[in-house]
Amino acid sequence: MARRKARLRLIPLGGLGEVGKNMLVVEYGDALLVVDAGLMFPEEEMLGIDLVLPDFSYVLERADQVTGIILTHGHEDHTGALPYVLRELRVPVYGTRLTLGLVRGKLAEHNLGKVRFKEISPGKTIQIGPFTLRFVSVSHSIPDGVAVVIDTPVGRIIHSGDFKIDQTPLDSRGTDICSLAALSKDGVLALLSDSTNAEVPGHVSPERAVGKVLDDIFQDAEGRIIVASFASHIHRMQQVVDVAARAGRKLAVVGRSMVNNVAIASELGYMNIPEHMLFDIEEMAKHNPSEICILSTGSQGEPLSALARMAAHEHRHVRIETGDTVIISASPVPGNEKAVSRTIDRLFRAGAEVFYESVSGVHVSGHGAQQELAMMIGIVKPKYFVPIHGEYRHLKYHARLAEGVGIPAENIFVMQNGDVIEMSPKKAEIVDRVQAGMILVDGLGVGDVGNVVLRDRQQLAEDGIFMVVVAISAQTGEVVSRPEIISRGFVYVKEAQDLLDEARLRVEERLALTAKEQITDWGLLKADVRNALSQFLYDETGRRPMILPVVVEV
Amino acid sequence: MARRKARLRLIPLGGLGEVGKNMLVVEYGDALLVVDAGLMFPEEEMLGIDLVLPDFSYVLERADQVTGIILTHGHEDHTGALPYVLRELRVPVYGTRLTLGLVRGKLAEHNLGKVRFKEISPGKTIQIGPFTLRFVSVSHSIPDGVAVVIDTPVGRIIHSGDFKIDQTPLDSRGTDICSLAALSKDGVLALLSDSTNAEVPGHVSPERAVGKVLDDIFQDAEGRIIVASFASHIHRMQQVVDVAARAGRKLAVVGRSMVNNVAIASELGYMNIPEHMLFDIEEMAKHNPSEICILSTGSQGEPLSALARMAAHEHRHVRIETGDTVIISASPVPGNEKAVSRTIDRLFRAGAEVFYESVSGVHVSGHGAQQELAMMIGIVKPKYFVPIHGEYRHLKYHARLAEGVGIPAENIFVMQNGDVIEMSPKKAEIVDRVQAGMILVDGLGVGDVGNVVLRDRQQLAEDGIFMVVVAISAQTGEVVSRPEIISRGFVYVKEAQDLLDEARLRVEERLALTAKEQITDWGLLKADVRNALSQFLYDETGRRPMILPVVVEV
Repeated sequence: MARRKARLRLIPLGGLGEVGKNMLVVEYGDALLVVDAGLMFPEEEMLGIDLVLPDFSYVLERADQVTGIILTHGHEDHTGALPYVLRELRVPVYGTRLTLGLVRGKLAEHNLGKVRFKEISPGKTIQIGPFTLRFVSVSHSIPDGVAVVIDTPVGRIIHSGDFKIDQTPLDSRGTDICSLAALSKDGVLALLSDSTNAEVPGHVSPERAVGKVLDDIFQDAEGRIIVASFASHIHRMQQVVDVAARAGRKLAVVGRSMVNNVAIASELGYMNIPEHMLFDIEEMAKHNPSEICILSTGSQGEPLSALARMAAHEHRHVRIETGDTVIISASPVPGNEKAVSRTIDRLFRAGAEVFYESVSGVHVSGHGAQQELAMMIGIVKPKYFVPIHGEYRHLKYHARLAEGVGIPAENIFVMQNGDVIEMSPKKAEIVDRVQAGMILVDGLGVGDVGNVVLRDRQQLAEDGIFMVVVAISAQTGEVVSRPEIISRGFVYVKEAQDLLDEARLRVEERLALTAKEQITDWGLLKADVRNALSQFLYDETGRRPMILPVVVEV
Repeated sequence: MARRKARLRLIPLGGLGEVGKNMLVVEYGDALLVVDAGLMFPEEEMLGIDLVLPDFSYVLERADQVTGIILTHGHEDHTGALPYVLRELRVPVYGTRLTLGLVRGKLAEHNLGKVRFKEISPGKTIQIGPFTLRFVSVSHSIPDGVAVVIDTPVGRIIHSGDFKIDQTPLDSRGTDICSLAALSKDGVLALLSDSTNAEVPGHVSPERAVGKVLDDIFQDAEGRIIVASFASHIHRMQQVVDVAARAGRKLAVVGRSMVNNVAIASELGYMNIPEHMLFDIEEMAKHNPSEICILSTGSQGEPLSALARMAAHEHRHVRIETGDTVIISASPVPGNEKAVSRTIDRLFRAGAEVFYESVSGVHVSGHGAQQELAMMIGIVKPKYFVPIHGEYRHLKYHARLAEGVGIPAENIFVMQNGDVIEMSPKKAEIVDRVQAGMILVDGLGVGDVGNVVLRDRQQLAEDGIFMVVVAISAQTGEVVSRPEIISRGFVYVKEAQDLLDEARLRVEERLALTAKEQITDWGLLKADVRNALSQFLYDETGRRPMILPVVVEV
């Protein structure tokens, strides 16, 4: 059979139609390159689930063709699936210095043995199989992010990573428009670009704007200042350090991920905290409240975080009290709104003055808004445009924006996870669909919890469980015990004894009847008991617990 | 014993430090008056709970002293607890015409028999026990809302209800500033005022502004238009009717609560839909898409609502498709953000053009922002100020606002549910605390689900249940069956047979050991099995299901 001509195919496995678990496969002939391997946090109805990974079966089935994994930046929605992917697939991992630094820390918890890390940096060119890669620095809410420029035999692909266009970045390493312009000069086949803020008009404020707001708050505050932020937002943390220094305050860092990341970022030179500023939180009493700044985790209202524990007076060293100023320098990730709101309320109750995104400018987004997205498209001027990273409506908005910039509608592809798009300079089209979706992680189990288990959890969560245990003689088929009734999560047993007694009577009636009818099929018997109980309990309580009749043969 | 001199006491039983279940007791001597009796929707962690009511034990314990319940307006967070209160307490219910109309509809579902409804209206004075009451019309996101002016022997109390100050109301019945000013002329002892939007600077947009936005959208739309809104937002619904009429579209109403409320509001004269405009949704095919407007429920992303079913192509008459325009003319109630976002995405996927609050002006709030709240305080000029209706931080913001308007800090009381404030022209102070909190409604059960049941549901929801059933001879204490293992919501049983077999072996080992040690205390035996299993299952799966050993004596 003649060998098929090599084609360029792009296959998003995650991050489209959702916020999180970003993963893209770039395929040319036999060679696969993976861009990002992120995780997502579970939706509310995924009861008991810890993490959600992209279904990467497609990659696994072609394990020997995978040439490497490129990380655009160090956020978990771009790197968090890595431990699970690397468990099955030993391929080199490419990332910038900070990205690899953060990932190394995470992987250490997973006992993966030796991983081949390869450092990349803007300006350098690397070759991976048939792909030539260059990297362009981009601004985001974590330093050292890159856009990835992938030269394939068919043409140049640009993947934006997550980005905004900040002309006054803290590290003088903003989104490198000049390099993008230069790389786009000879024509770009396709741009894949971050859609997270495609609904937002205008331009997001620069990171430095937050510094000014913090300066004002620090100026007015007389007591301790506690700032909570994302532990990966190194620039924000650096701004807090700088503002604290200007205000003559010393700094303590609390919360495991914050402590870890400050250590990594400082060691790698991405953060600079003058040694004399730091104090140990255990020695807080030695300092005047007006000289204290605490950098903390907990900006998402996580109930076990340092900030939540401070507010609840459960933190070992810090109890929020009147006179404290708390700054939540982050926005709630969708789904966390209630938890954040609750934390803010607790802080107010504890007596603190609280500053948060909706009432003050203590946070700016790391994702470019419409004008920035349009600028990216305008500079790159791709032939084909694929919006990535976002809910379906974000992709849709981004597609419209691209049309506005001048990309013909037929060259814009709003794709879904698993769609396969084949591209050549002449033509691009969605030609196939591969397996894609979610893998649920629950404890040590990866992918072993599916719809059946979740449905059971849902029912158990709603109305609890109601069990009836009966012992039956294997020889005679006679019932040899009184039905034992056990319920959990259904009613408060101590106050519902009458209900349970009545339920037991109903079961005994059914058993007597089935005995009379000489039914010995336990399946039939169980179904009969279940139906009788289900109706009885619903009539009495309006609830539908899971009903579990158990027959023990003795 | 000398009879204590009659005192004026105000006791909020709900709505402070939370959004919902508003309820206030005004007490003078032996007479109690209740203002509002609302419900709240359950927090995420209240698994399986349907509704949350204020704990009104305080009122029940004084049942014969309660003179009546005043409703400020017809929203469920002000009226939803009424069926539960009236079940225990047959007192007259006072409300304006529309408020009573809506409440009557709801109460009909509860089989309460005859309720004494008494219609009130702005301008009229009524006497209830020692209280003289007047009512002042206020604008809100439902018509016919009132502020309540309560004259007590000690002084005048004003309760704002929920309000905003809209100078161009649809029904020419805005917040009646002149009456408030006149009633405040002789001095107001205390103002209790709505804090919901106390964080929001400025002034909320008038309701009519939404009409203009809708006009523009209707002008551009070529296919069907579907507008989802709160079913109680009669003015919004009327605006949709008016806009549809101007655009030459006919109207169909779908969704049970929307149909009910349109009927009630039309009958009572609060809505006016020209008969010729209405069409039956079943006959939609007879009309051109460009002539169709559908008014629907589902603005909160409720999975079973008409809009959600239209988006999922599960609605009997309407399937959202390319060419449709959907307007979600509401904002997500806190906690519903994800559900609304998901519905928007589904609508986009189905091909619709979607307009929603965050990207267009299709909704304005019904609660006054800072300038309006300040105006209320400035007009009423109360001696004492008590912010009500809102999270703790909203109350706090509102208190600051009052200080800004000139109320001395010591005359402002940020209270909690259950606090008792005693007031006289000379002095106000929090003198006591009574029982207050939540009553959970689950199915037919009111208050029978508490922490024990919720904790069990939480554990069941997280990791499911794992049961071991053993039959033991009552006479000899010998185990007379193999341990039966049943699990739900823990692992997918079909693929975890090895794990379950191994678990059974562990149990058999323990049973053999305890038999050898001649342990016959089933409690001890169960604890032993539970511990062994718990450790084993955690080691193997990283999960902690509820473990339930059951011993059946035969």
